[in-house]
Amino acid sequence: MAERLEHVDPTPSRPAAAPRPGGGPTVGIVGGGQLARMMLTAASELGIDARVLATDSDESAPGVWPHTTVVPDLDDAALGPFAMEVDALTFDHELVDPEVLAALERHGHVLRPGARALAFSDKAHQRTTFAAAGLPVPRFAVVDDARAVEGFAASVGGWPVVVKPPRGGYDGRGVHLVDGPDEAAALLEGIGGAVVVEELVDIDAELAVLVVTRASGGHVRYPVVGTVQVDGICHEVVCPPPVAPEVVAEAERVATAVAEVVAAVGVLAVELFVSGGRVLVNEVAPRPHNSGHLTIEATTTSQFENHLRAVLDWPLGDVAPLAPAAVMLNVLGDPTAGDPAVHRPDALAVPGAHVHLYGKSWRAGRKLGHVTALGPDVGSARATARAALDALGGR
Amino acid sequence: MAERLEHVDPTPSRPAAAPRPGGGPTVGIVGGGQLARMMLTAASELGIDARVLATDSDESAPGVWPHTTVVPDLDDAALGPFAMEVDALTFDHELVDPEVLAALERHGHVLRPGARALAFSDKAHQRTTFAAAGLPVPRFAVVDDARAVEGFAASVGGWPVVVKPPRGGYDGRGVHLVDGPDEAAALLEGIGGAVVVEELVDIDAELAVLVVTRASGGHVRYPVVGTVQVDGICHEVVCPPPVAPEVVAEAERVATAVAEVVAAVGVLAVELFVSGGRVLVNEVAPRPHNSGHLTIEATTTSQFENHLRAVLDWPLGDVAPLAPAAVMLNVLGDPTAGDPAVHRPDALAVPGAHVHLYGKSWRAGRKLGHVTALGPDVGSARATARAALDALGGR
Repeated sequence: MAERLEHVDPTPSRPAAAPRPGGGPTVGIVGGGQLARMMLTAASELGIDARVLATDSDESAPGVWPHTTVVPDLDDAALGPFAMEVDALTFDHELVDPEVLAALERHGHVLRPGARALAFSDKAHQRTTFAAAGLPVPRFAVVDDARAVEGFAASVGGWPVVVKPPRGGYDGRGVHLVDGPDEAAALLEGIGGAVVVEELVDIDAELAVLVVTRASGGHVRYPVVGTVQVDGICHEVVCPPPVAPEVVAEAERVATAVAEVVAAVGVLAVELFVSGGRVLVNEVAPRPHNSGHLTIEATTTSQFENHLRAVLDWPLGDVAPLAPAAVMLNVLGDPTAGDPAVHRPDALAVPGAHVHLYGKSWRAGRKLGHVTALGPDVGSARATARAALDALGGR
Repeated sequence: MAERLEHVDPTPSRPAAAPRPGGGPTVGIVGGGQLARMMLTAASELGIDARVLATDSDESAPGVWPHTTVVPDLDDAALGPFAMEVDALTFDHELVDPEVLAALERHGHVLRPGARALAFSDKAHQRTTFAAAGLPVPRFAVVDDARAVEGFAASVGGWPVVVKPPRGGYDGRGVHLVDGPDEAAALLEGIGGAVVVEELVDIDAELAVLVVTRASGGHVRYPVVGTVQVDGICHEVVCPPPVAPEVVAEAERVATAVAEVVAAVGVLAVELFVSGGRVLVNEVAPRPHNSGHLTIEATTTSQFENHLRAVLDWPLGDVAPLAPAAVMLNVLGDPTAGDPAVHRPDALAVPGAHVHLYGKSWRAGRKLGHVTALGPDVGSARATARAALDALGGR
């Protein structure tokens, strides 16, 4: 099979390609966090020539990858030369300026996902586009003054409402529960621009579905998982999720429809609310996602490997579960237990627990790793994962 | 649990320790081949601070690990400073001069396995020690002239006999089938020292068993596998092996006894012949081994992860099989198909095949990677692995 990557326009200033042991195309990963680190494990196994562009040598990926460039900012001065070295760019996070991304595509570089899909990092764009496509979303408005927030609150039955700046929030940052006009005024003044205001949905359960789309088309969908968020930070992911089969089926249907709208090459994580028997789209992220870390052990092909396969336009791998149940718990920096790496041997004493630490320095509340366990049912998998997490002191 | 590594003697010239993101002890891997590369995948997942000492930047490990030092030779000038940087040394291969190893231990460095276990790299030492311990081995003698080879041949019923230099052979190199006195004389003159001469055993099957021993004691034993060698090079590994249950039980018994004699910290690979219903010790290797590559997918804890756990004196992980059957096939450089990396997408189109490429440049007959498949039985797992291997053109 011939490689199908479109080639970057050669220019006189394009540097000579570095040697590529094992042959094949080169992937550039923008961002050096734990998602990049876990993609690199897959790259190492498959012999993929990968390069990383990071902003700090203390991030997760530079500590485990020799082909890393550290730059002060992920701006066009950094991304332009990096794009010249690789056949396709992909992303560890969605924090790159959309104008920089658009310029890279104009110059002929291959972005996977592309700038159009990455535009869905903007929550206003998500809500507006999904609503226009007839997808189920919470009631919302995109507004730019406090009076409009007040009007929206009145239209949905009163306060509180949820206010989000369109960009930059993750792990619960950037999601504000607003309880009245004064709070709304202060918040919007602080944000200084348009925001998404939403009804506060009565959430029965949260689900996530990863859909992986290959560059030339075709996709695979991982099993639906349940997620448990505390203060907006993912604490637990369980498979199968604790909802009725018809809700799972509806989640699959909605996630597939969302993926068709976003059309992101690679992993698209679709986060969903279950509310009063309905499935609503919460957010999407066009990249490997915390809700998919359990795929490393729980499926034949991890989300990280399938992401790279999709980016390279290679056939996607099997996503069927390998065990009846799987549970993942995040290792968050615990204020009293300190660095979980110190407690690692105790966690490894838990039979069946898979311990992942990202090589990040400890800070209270920081995501430092995760543990996964498979089992005959969610209860036993959770007990195994919980025992390992308790040993690590990861909350 | 406190870290139990003995500390290297501090000396005034010991360099300041490099930063250790994630904390914990530092492991130094001597040798930069594919075994090191696969250990590093486990190191990345567990957040282990690992360093590599390689002799060529084109080896497998330097391409995937930033903390690599390339030196001209693995001599005391290279190993001494490297040992100063790490808490424990382990090995990708057994080619380091035993005197260098002994000197490192004398200087207080922690070698896992230690120099005493690494001495079993010497085939004369293996045979002599195992025979003295009452372990079943082929009839053999350690001799240093052609006349003694002739005498040995007469004592075992005539030519041919097998002649091996004690050190340096692997993948069939260094195993000579000798058919008469003239051939013996020419070979011994070429070798110029003591050799092991053995009866040519009538082999019904070849088996391998990996026993992993933790630094402070205690071991786990992986399921017995069958191996298929062609011209002394491993082509296929199958689990379960194609032998009767009582032969498997005898292989487990012998391998455990061998591991107790060798007392190697980390993985000890025990290769066995099955001949006329008897199990005989062929060779041992005190390191992760080609016969264990299928443990990456086929067991909860891979041989590479368990090797590092053992070296760090951490609890060993579960080694139970995750599927009824597993088959691994080596990807050997094919003279006509060329670089298998070029054919990678076709191999990934085979559902259920796990493709591993080591980032090595192509050369006919060179081990460039492997493929593994799990299945409900050996036949179906082999069919999957075979389809992927055929796609890669790896023979």
